[in-house]
Formats: sequence, structure tokens, C-alpha cells
Amino acid sequence: MTRYRATVAYDGTAYEGWQRLSEGHPSVQGALEAALQQVSRQAVEVIGAGRTDSGVHALGQVIAFELAWPHGTDTLLKALNHALPRDIALQDLTIQDDFHPRFDALSRTYGYQVAMLAQRQPLCLRTCWQVAAPLDLAAMNAAAALLIGRHDFATFGSPPDGVGNTIREVFASSWQELSSPYGRMAFYTVTATAFLRHMVRRIVWMLVEVGRGRLSLDDFQAAFLARDLSRSGKLAPPQGLTLTEVRYPPPGTRRPGHHQAHH
Amino acid sequence: MTRYRATVAYDGTAYEGWQRLSEGHPSVQGALEAALQQVSRQAVEVIGAGRTDSGVHALGQVIAFELAWPHGTDTLLKALNHALPRDIALQDLTIQDDFHPRFDALSRTYGYQVAMLAQRQPLCLRTCWQVAAPLDLAAMNAAAALLIGRHDFATFGSPPDGVGNTIREVFASSWQELSSPYGRMAFYTVTATAFLRHMVRRIVWMLVEVGRGRLSLDDFQAAFLARDLSRSGKLAPPQGLTLTEVRYPPPGTRRPGHHQAHH
Repeated sequence: MTRYRATVAYDGTAYEGWQRLSEGHPSVQGALEAALQQVSRQAVEVIGAGRTDSGVHALGQVIAFELAWPHGTDTLLKALNHALPRDIALQDLTIQDDFHPRFDALSRTYGYQVAMLAQRQPLCLRTCWQVAAPLDLAAMNAAAALLIGRHDFATFGSPPDGVGNTIREVFASSWQELSSPYGRMAFYTVTATAFLRHMVRRIVWMLVEVGRGRLSLDDFQAAFLARDLSRSGKLAPPQGLTLTEVRYPPPGTRRPGHHQAHH
Repeated sequence: MTRYRATVAYDGTAYEGWQRLSEGHPSVQGALEAALQQVSRQAVEVIGAGRTDSGVHALGQVIAFELAWPHGTDTLLKALNHALPRDIALQDLTIQDDFHPRFDALSRTYGYQVAMLAQRQPLCLRTCWQVAAPLDLAAMNAAAALLIGRHDFATFGSPPDGVGNTIREVFASSWQELSSPYGRMAFYTVTATAFLRHMVRRIVWMLVEVGRGRLSLDDFQAAFLARDLSRSGKLAPPQGLTLTEVRYPPPGTRRPGHHQAHH
């Protein structure tokens, strides 16, 4: 058996999220396992770095699986991308012994796209949250910066499976205005050791409330410091969110605390 | 009856092009007319500036229609966008007497996106032509520049409905490399008085052949000067193409040659 590592991109629109569920509930993990089964005639479990929600996309999801494969990795990569549905594709594939995409990850980065448009823009419906009002990006950035550092993020999410604490370290959290053929676009990037369930979408919702002028910076900060899930608002819609990158130590190095669970 | 002018954006994936066809063949024109019928209970004909092909998108298609409507344009805009399918939306709506989107147009601009990616990228399948090879953009730009000016474009297309000549004036024709979250992207912009049927897609196919090194600049030029449709290659796939803008004289001015047909 060989341990493989791969980067996976997907359009999450048609899936009920990353995690394999029961029959009739399409998942990205399930589709990857089905492609591996089809190609290798082996039942293979795929492990992913991040459990993206229903409708959330990925450019840089990272996975691992074990397989007995008699041919080269290039052949396997081609065969898998041929077997996979069009909306999921491996971007690369390597052999890496003892690699664990979740436990070994140093950080995850998510991007969230908000389009500031007066009318619906069909060409970015699948990848943007469309917000009619112009947003105050300076105010949103002031609030976003408060999240940087090691904090208790209980206001913005619960631990995966209800297990573990709600302390995470955020390395980067900022908005950028991007020009786009669709009009004015605000792009949020957030990097952290790991994220709580729904954390990015709860943060984005509240930051957009700040940008709309419905929530002051002080209100945002008070809610954050309250460490109380009931103080956060709704979830920003899933289609604006993309798991863009997961970082690891260079292959061969071993981190202290290896195999300590992070989600 | 009032004459309305509107800018329309659409994701063309689900449509067999702009033009209304028979029952069971979804078209953008048909969907707009159905929405007008639903909102106004009147049978209304919608005229468009450009007849986009099956699967081609628009950010700036321009349309006109006549309607007896007792309320304001804002109300009509809202009602139409509510009645339209999600993949079509009016971006604006104004009243403009005697406006004809096809005859009055000064120029049309199309954009074409080519993604240079080794593996399939699900998030840009709907809007890009994915090409594995790296492309020589300098060579593509040298060839693209040959098209600028007033020329016979018979190599690249036939006149709409087989009527009229194949002479058109191209104002701009160039490639740009764009950074994108999906990887290296080459973006072609072409502006002309009007286009022949399939003209942009035939041009893009041949320019990409130049970029791949399969066709020299001299070969491209010889094919162009031959004014012979059989000298062009295939069509670049439709999903990379978007009608981005149609330009008009300022409202109220009347061009010489008004109501001379252009397509």
C-alpha cells in the first residue's frame, strides 16, 4: 500500500459538503472515494484537510489515501480525473508516507467573495454573495483586524463534533477591493491554524453587517469578546466561500505535537 | 407604448444562444419575452444587439422592447428580474424613443478567457477554455494585431443570414495575461463595428494555434488574406466567450446611415 497526497479543486454547488453522508447525499469525499473505487477496484478511504460546508468550493483542499497501485502517479492522476465528475479535479498527486492532511496542517486559508452590485449578476451567482449596498471596506478591515492573534472564537462557531476548545490562532484577516468584469468586488482572506464549524461564514456575515453600517466596530468587538455563539448573527451564504490553501511543513520534517488533532 | 432600452447579463450555459427558436429550445431572447409576457400580460418582441451562440455569455448585451406599462421603470426592472430565471438579469433599464440596439450600435466588444492549466479547474469550467499547453502570448498578440483595421474577414466567418458582405472594421484586438486564483489566464479582447457569424470563436481558435506554436505568424496572415472560410480552423469553445459591451452614440444624437443593418 502506498500513501498518496493530492490537492483537489471543486465547485461545491452540487454537493452537500465535503463529508461523506448516507446514500443519496452527494459529497466531495464520497465522489473521490467512488472514483478511486472505479479506477482501482479497491475500497479506499479519503481523508481531507478541511470539512467544507454544503455549497462551499475549494481550490486547494488537500487529501490523502492509501492504495495498492501498480502504475505511476501520472497515470493514476489522469485516471482519477477522468473518473471524477467534471466539478471535482485533482490538481496534483504525489507519494508521501505518513502524511495526514488534517493533523499535519500548519494553517488553512479561506477566501470569501462579496459582489457589491445593484442588480443580480448571473455570471458570479455560483461564487459570490451579492450585496446591494456599497460596503465600507475600511470599517470592515478595522473589525477584521481584531480577529488576528490567538483568541477564543466561541462567538463564531462550535468545535467540530462538539469536541475540543474554541481557541484558534488567526494569522491573517483582511478585505481587499478587487476590480472584476462583474463590477465592484470585496474579497476577504482569512488564515488560521484551524477553524471552528461555520466560523468563516459567521465572521463574514458580521463583517458585512459592519460594512453596511448596521453594526459598529464596538458592537463587533463586544460580541467577539463575549465568547458566546448566540452573539453572532446569521451565516454568510456558502457559495462565496472557497478553501484556497492548506499549508504543511516541508515533506520529511516532523512537527512537535504531531498527530494532535486540529480541525 | 413606450420604448425601453436595457443592458442584460446572462450565463449562457443553459441556453441555445440568444435567438428565439422553436418550443423546447431555450433561448435568452425567449426567456426575456416570457418574463415580459408574465409581468405585463402583453406579447412583446425583444430585439438584441448581438446574437450570441449557444453557451456564450453576456455582461453587456443591449436590448430594446416596446411596452405599455403604467408604473415606473424601477418597478418594471424589479418585476422583470424577479420573473426572469436566475441566469439572466437586467443590469439597468431606461426609456429611449426610437432606439434600435442593432442598427444604432457603434461597436461591440467581446472577451474570451483561456486558462492555461495542466489539470481541469472546476471553478472556471463555465467561463474558460482550458488549454494544457503554455501559450506564447507575444506571438498571439503579433497575430491579433494584424486584424486591426477595415478588412475582409471572410476567412473567419460568414455574414449573418448569408446576407451582406464580410467587411468589418476591428478597432482593438489583443491578449493580456491575467493573474487569477485559478492560475495563469489569457484574456482576449476584440472590438469591431460588428462581427460575422462565429467570427470571434474562429479567430480565437487560430490565435491559440499560433500560441501553441502549431501555426506561424505567416501562416496566420496567409489564411487571413485568403478571404476563404475553409482556411480557418475549428471554433474555440463557446463557454470562454462573453459579449462584454455594445457602444452607442449618446442618446439624442443621430448617426449618418441610421437604420443601415449591422450584425
